[in-house]
Amino acid sequence: MHALELTKPDGRRMTLYARRPLPPGLAAPSPFRDPLAGGAHLRWHPLRGEWVTYAAHRQGRTFLPPPEYNPLAPMTDPSNPTEVPEGPWDIAVFENRFPSLGGSVPAPPQLIVPTAPAHGRCEVVVFTQDRGSSLGALSLDHIELLLQVWGDRTARLGAEEAIRYVLPFENRGAEVGVTLHHPHGQIYAYPVVPPVPARMQQVAEEHLAKHGRGVLEMHIEAERRDGARMLYEGPHAVAFVPACARYPYEVWIAPTRPVEGFAQLGDAERADLARALKTVLLKFDGLWQRPFPYLMAWYQAPTDGRPHPESHLHAQLWPPYRTRDRLKYLAGTELAAGFFAMDALPEEKARELQQVEARIA
Amino acid sequence: MHALELTKPDGRRMTLYARRPLPPGLAAPSPFRDPLAGGAHLRWHPLRGEWVTYAAHRQGRTFLPPPEYNPLAPMTDPSNPTEVPEGPWDIAVFENRFPSLGGSVPAPPQLIVPTAPAHGRCEVVVFTQDRGSSLGALSLDHIELLLQVWGDRTARLGAEEAIRYVLPFENRGAEVGVTLHHPHGQIYAYPVVPPVPARMQQVAEEHLAKHGRGVLEMHIEAERRDGARMLYEGPHAVAFVPACARYPYEVWIAPTRPVEGFAQLGDAERADLARALKTVLLKFDGLWQRPFPYLMAWYQAPTDGRPHPESHLHAQLWPPYRTRDRLKYLAGTELAAGFFAMDALPEEKARELQQVEARIA
Repeated sequence: MHALELTKPDGRRMTLYARRPLPPGLAAPSPFRDPLAGGAHLRWHPLRGEWVTYAAHRQGRTFLPPPEYNPLAPMTDPSNPTEVPEGPWDIAVFENRFPSLGGSVPAPPQLIVPTAPAHGRCEVVVFTQDRGSSLGALSLDHIELLLQVWGDRTARLGAEEAIRYVLPFENRGAEVGVTLHHPHGQIYAYPVVPPVPARMQQVAEEHLAKHGRGVLEMHIEAERRDGARMLYEGPHAVAFVPACARYPYEVWIAPTRPVEGFAQLGDAERADLARALKTVLLKFDGLWQRPFPYLMAWYQAPTDGRPHPESHLHAQLWPPYRTRDRLKYLAGTELAAGFFAMDALPEEKARELQQVEARIA
Repeated sequence: MHALELTKPDGRRMTLYARRPLPPGLAAPSPFRDPLAGGAHLRWHPLRGEWVTYAAHRQGRTFLPPPEYNPLAPMTDPSNPTEVPEGPWDIAVFENRFPSLGGSVPAPPQLIVPTAPAHGRCEVVVFTQDRGSSLGALSLDHIELLLQVWGDRTARLGAEEAIRYVLPFENRGAEVGVTLHHPHGQIYAYPVVPPVPARMQQVAEEHLAKHGRGVLEMHIEAERRDGARMLYEGPHAVAFVPACARYPYEVWIAPTRPVEGFAQLGDAERADLARALKTVLLKFDGLWQRPFPYLMAWYQAPTDGRPHPESHLHAQLWPPYRTRDRLKYLAGTELAAGFFAMDALPEEKARELQQVEARIA
């Protein structure tokens, strides 16, 4: 992996990653000339016991791009301002211009609830220069590079004093609110361990203390023994529809060894994890022969400087469809109670995905 | 309040409620003749430490109604089978034919995760016989009756041995996945305290132990002192955009006195709470002069037979819109991290709603 660190004219940081050495002379462009304006603050939700971030500057954007505008493509037309330079890079990472966390962090207002500066980082990860491609269509070694990039970002962001948790994710498809279709994901680096990972850490800690082994490690073993919901079984990585899926086509992807995060993967593990990920995404797109929307989040250990033997790197993918033409809406019971109601069995949905061929050259 | 308990031909329970006495001779119809088929089961999610319910029979519905079909309107055309009888009732409650919890509960399957019978209840609450109306358009005494009905259902369902938590909610609008537009809500009665109420109970318990007063009671006092986000202030009830809103137009509605649930409301409190609710819903529909979609959930104390001085009955309303023509999608940070990111300040959204007149006769 080769990395080149740059700074945009408005002060934002950018890193270009490539499989081969990058030539000198690359510069980081920005569609914006003025420096970053005032940023976000946090407010405490007293009933739920969690922080909410308010980035009101996001509404003040004067820059309203036309629908065909793609700021993630290298500049080819000077009237099309871009976030990324021309050059032989494979993956580009830069700070979001309108971050929900980090950037220019002002002192928080005084309110009737506790407030705090919105420290953290929000990064955009451009998966490829090819706007017509998709994560699943990239080559295995390109996807391996992405796993390395996620590891590098986690290490760099996690080393910052204010940051306690790093979450790489991808929202894909108009159905989940994405308007920019150039293949890309995001990384949120939080100043706290957020509610969902915090809950999962607590459950995993209790499990490890009780059983002496990790909860996901044992679940993976049980899924492999059962076999009914497996989508990929390699020497070092697996993918399956979990027996407890909360979305009809939910899939988990993980290394079989309980590593804390991307940075702890060995080369063979990373290669097999890339193959597991590509297999799942090809099955998704193959199922209905059209791009399959999903939310994909990668959970790893908190970056609080302590060891986390209870953590086990893995992805959870949550597609919004129930069937080819029906979305699963999250409504009363899911959002207000946090109690998911499914009308499909994971075994049935796994069978659908098992039958889709995933051709990897 | 007058109530009449009936049984549908397929065995489901139904209760008709009215402000005036109901005549004898009312019978409960059903569009379905065959008895209930096999029902749902629960599976344990080992990573999140929560139950998920699987009602696979819902997919097997042979009954596919045409779009204009309204099973919540009294029968006027014999070819239009209905769930409700003709007669002078105001509000009808019946068991969902395809419940996610309860109904005919089979023994759960043996799986690699713990499973359990899906005990509980799922009820449909028909707010009015008028299909063209809406909750906010109903008269104050009709809304008061609904608050009584929610109290009656909570008492009856909560008294069942298997039930630990009763959640009345309304999903309104196609934007939140509702296909049946006759004014109605739902009640889920759970065999456990579900994750979101469980978290709020824990936070409220810790607050009460530390401060000697309820967390919502103190928050309401602070909102009233501040005033910037208030939408309704009556002698016994309030409504406001909370300082920690997670949705742009989020509103909370509550009695000022910390009562555990609907059943503990006094007459004057119930009347004022109805007025607060109607005020908010009129403001919602008035904002853009069109029906305003939302998810509304009413949180109350668990029904585990123990006193819950930490509980404080209230509604949280979560509209899905950010602006007149832009939805707020829940994506990576909200769903995967549980960390909400807002691009509007609650003070600004409260001002918009404050300026909408809510005319109550």
